Amino acid sequence: MKATVLHAPGDVRYEEVPEPEILKSTDAIIRLSASCICGSDLWPWRGIDKPAGPMRMGHEYCGVVVEVGADVKTIRPGQFVVGSFALSDNTCPHCRHGFQSSCVQREFMSGAQAPLARVPLADGSLVATETMPDDDLIPSLLAVSDVLGTGWYAADAARVRPGSTVAVVGDGAVGLMGVLAAKQMGAGRIIAMSRHKQRQDLALEYGATDIVTERGDAGVAAIKAMTRDVGADAVLECVGTKESMFQAINAARPGGSVGFVGVPHGVELGGEFLFFSQKNLLGGPAPVRRFLPDLMDLVLTRQINPGKVFDQELPIADVAHGYRAMDERRAIKTLLRI
Amino acid sequence: MKATVLHAPGDVRYEEVPEPEILKSTDAIIRLSASCICGSDLWPWRGIDKPAGPMRMGHEYCGVVVEVGADVKTIRPGQFVVGSFALSDNTCPHCRHGFQSSCVQREFMSGAQAPLARVPLADGSLVATETMPDDDLIPSLLAVSDVLGTGWYAADAARVRPGSTVAVVGDGAVGLMGVLAAKQMGAGRIIAMSRHKQRQDLALEYGATDIVTERGDAGVAAIKAMTRDVGADAVLECVGTKESMFQAINAARPGGSVGFVGVPHGVELGGEFLFFSQKNLLGGPAPVRRFLPDLMDLVLTRQINPGKVFDQELPIADVAHGYRAMDERRAIKTLLRI
Repeated sequence: MKATVLHAPGDVRYEEVPEPEILKSTDAIIRLSASCICGSDLWPWRGIDKPAGPMRMGHEYCGVVVEVGADVKTIRPGQFVVGSFALSDNTCPHCRHGFQSSCVQREFMSGAQAPLARVPLADGSLVATETMPDDDLIPSLLAVSDVLGTGWYAADAARVRPGSTVAVVGDGAVGLMGVLAAKQMGAGRIIAMSRHKQRQDLALEYGATDIVTERGDAGVAAIKAMTRDVGADAVLECVGTKESMFQAINAARPGGSVGFVGVPHGVELGGEFLFFSQKNLLGGPAPVRRFLPDLMDLVLTRQINPGKVFDQELPIADVAHGYRAMDERRAIKTLLRI
Repeated sequence: MKATVLHAPGDVRYEEVPEPEILKSTDAIIRLSASCICGSDLWPWRGIDKPAGPMRMGHEYCGVVVEVGADVKTIRPGQFVVGSFALSDNTCPHCRHGFQSSCVQREFMSGAQAPLARVPLADGSLVATETMPDDDLIPSLLAVSDVLGTGWYAADAARVRPGSTVAVVGDGAVGLMGVLAAKQMGAGRIIAMSRHKQRQDLALEYGATDIVTERGDAGVAAIKAMTRDVGADAVLECVGTKESMFQAINAARPGGSVGFVGVPHGVELGGEFLFFSQKNLLGGPAPVRRFLPDLMDLVLTRQINPGKVFDQELPIADVAHGYRAMDERRAIKTLLRI
């Protein structure tokens, strides 16, 4: 079969590779219903992360199980499943505490920008639907796997409560999903920080009540001005740069919370700064598995439509165009039809 | 009157100064029932913090009100009061959220190693008792002002819950108060990290269930070994050095929480480290005012005895001996009789 392989910065190819096989008795093989490109795929594509060699891309996935290993108990061929990008056994103490993305057996999914993919730790990572979902729900179910689950975790880590004043730093797909999550959690006010008309519009559709176009210190000043100089109760950091991280911390009120889900690049935080800021901080790879059943249910009952975040759709053979479109911010998030 | 003044590293003197006066209409003047030396007083005494000039020392206080400014409404001369080392109006939005140590009018108390002291923002900072407390309760009431309030905040920020496994980094007075707080909050297991027999004994008396003598990576390994490789649910960081901060973060389980109350000196935290550690972090100067009524009640009803942390008692004229004893760890905490 063909699959997506990154050879060097800017050089991603859809090319012939061996078909995936069961390597461990806890694996499953799935046929993907659709695939997509993640903002985090751009780190190695841009050369900021340096993979050692050719890298099989793709970690967001949903589809139909075609084969399972001998020790897989709960997942069966023929089932439609959604899984977390962070693979977990869902039984270890960290999993039981709801932090499956720190599972003692954690692996990260790879190779999902392809028609078939191997899913390690199938029982712990996958959740099956009762019936085959309608085709039009596939983009939203795919979104649950990472981008929605990550935005949801950002809001959860930032302790969004009914009535909270929430600020979202980052208008990428994760930030927009953070807006959706904050709305679902009952936030009273959701301030989306964006300077792109199309992303602003989607943020408003997902529940944002205010838009701030300024960034950095000016962005913080704008949030302060909108909150009678108090700051936000909850801030979702969905970028991962030094500027966005400081913007997020400084936009929260003392005692408020920052959920940070953008993988930090070049971020150093001084202890004294953190001490006197007095903000709650929690970040990390999202424990999507914790949220998976509830989020799938919200999609299947059509209460949320996270799939709308895909504003570009390409045949998977054109995957390289998708990377370029996302890099140039011409696309928020690219769905790959298989 | 005489008061404690730091002139240079290692040079602290009890010397003649002007008596404090009402400077603002929201001030009170109190006559201290006792005073004491704080671990944080050692930073400038050791020359690690560099004050611009002679510095009036002391920020922990309780005593009898002798005079109040024209705008003080709730505090009256003759009342016995305890106050927080962080002065606050207790009415601003940050105060109403329980973070009085980030009050918009915040000042830090000073000049309390003296017979008389000026307390700014008296209405917001002071809590009066209904009657004059028994003399033997004075050390414990004094402890509430900072050392107990700070240990309590560490446990609160680390989200200690009934049944939690708690580790306390630092066997100074604040760490010992953190043990007491964790016990009061119902922790199931309290691991005190200490290599000093006398401090271990007091930790055990305050509720520690286990002692770990190792530090740094070895200390983390010991905590892991005691928790089936999981880590602690809650870690109280009560030192403020680079080693203690990493020890605290690494001793917590993923999804666990670190409350850090030692003022950080030379601590830098990498964004990627924090991300993949996936621990809740909250620190800062303790909002003692939030806890003051409850903690005073626990002392007045003799349910807790935080005053036992004072293992040295000196006449205030000998304050310089107290600084040396604490610096050399011959004393956990020094009470100054006035």
